[in-house]
Amino acid sequence: MTNKPTIAILGGTGHEGTGLALRWASNGYDVIIGSRQKEKALKVTGELNEILGKDLIRGMENGSAAREADINVLTVVSTAHEAAVTGLKDDLQGKILVDATARIQFPNPKPPDPPSAARLAQNTLGEAVRVVAAFQNIPASALKDLDKDLDSDVLVCADQREDADQVMELIRGAGMNAYYVGNLDIAITIEGLTAVLVYLNKYNDIKHASIKIIGS
Amino acid sequence: MTNKPTIAILGGTGHEGTGLALRWASNGYDVIIGSRQKEKALKVTGELNEILGKDLIRGMENGSAAREADINVLTVVSTAHEAAVTGLKDDLQGKILVDATARIQFPNPKPPDPPSAARLAQNTLGEAVRVVAAFQNIPASALKDLDKDLDSDVLVCADQREDADQVMELIRGAGMNAYYVGNLDIAITIEGLTAVLVYLNKYNDIKHASIKIIGS
Repeated sequence: MTNKPTIAILGGTGHEGTGLALRWASNGYDVIIGSRQKEKALKVTGELNEILGKDLIRGMENGSAAREADINVLTVVSTAHEAAVTGLKDDLQGKILVDATARIQFPNPKPPDPPSAARLAQNTLGEAVRVVAAFQNIPASALKDLDKDLDSDVLVCADQREDADQVMELIRGAGMNAYYVGNLDIAITIEGLTAVLVYLNKYNDIKHASIKIIGS
Repeated sequence: MTNKPTIAILGGTGHEGTGLALRWASNGYDVIIGSRQKEKALKVTGELNEILGKDLIRGMENGSAAREADINVLTVVSTAHEAAVTGLKDDLQGKILVDATARIQFPNPKPPDPPSAARLAQNTLGEAVRVVAAFQNIPASALKDLDKDLDSDVLVCADQREDADQVMELIRGAGMNAYYVGNLDIAITIEGLTAVLVYLNKYNDIKHASIKIIGS
């Protein structure tokens, strides 16, 4: 038995989703990987549980995963963002949806134009879903290497501070620092940062660039 | 005698401009503080030279400063950006202009809409002026404390990489790391980051927040 929330990672079979799943599962959270195809979710879940050495992560179709979870995290590719949000609207009512989407193109990304992906999701889902933006800038490679501590900081946006606080607790539970930086409109800059990180890697002698907050 | 370029800091009497002036002057650069009023430039310059213990920094009216310098840095308040760029167009021809402007309002800043301030400056000044965006995120307080090493990293945008390289050498000469992150359109995200830093300070237990790039 645990007081920790059940986390579903929707569209969670990619690098970012599986990386987050591994971090949370290895820190004692109940984790579900969601996919449009249940078979794909089960296949990926099997691989992750093998890494963990225990059957900790469950696999489900996205809608079932969303309904089963306390908190949902959306890690679809950016081109699938709109369809995923629209398709999961009913399943997400009354819940928190953490949107990790950065709508950037490769190989030469431009900062996306406002509104932010998270604001678009909030507009589509309605006010009974509490959207929180996070994880847009976290390199998947770092998440998947469980032997390494995570140095990247997570910038969190939400219209309601208390929703952000719940998600920030989960982020700390995955081993990262989290900072609240304002409402969902601010997330446009965090999305753009993902493009900046692409160029940091491309033009400078650095791999898997990410940001750390410093101050006094 | 020196091979280092002469740097003019236009609209340089504020916290950011004077902070940069102190860093460069104390590292052997020839620095001019420009202001709309020559008297103000001279007054501020006198104060800075007192801190330095030597008459290292000169004060001039903005236009004279721009013409005298090899590289110009614009540190006006954001509301004065358009008028300053337009007014200095003739004086800046053939030179590099480093634009440090982040067009954000207080106390509740929103990320500015594209185009970036630096792109607007480039459009106004024409192609014979090479605009480089930098320093939008550097806390002035850190710059002015000469006893402290600077941990904040500077993200640099320019349409031509070689212009960025010249400016990055100056940034390193002021004691900071510099990273090239792409063309002037990318700078909209760096401007938005200044708003994010305001909220980092406001909502989290942190002062003078800034960012550091990490990677492997």
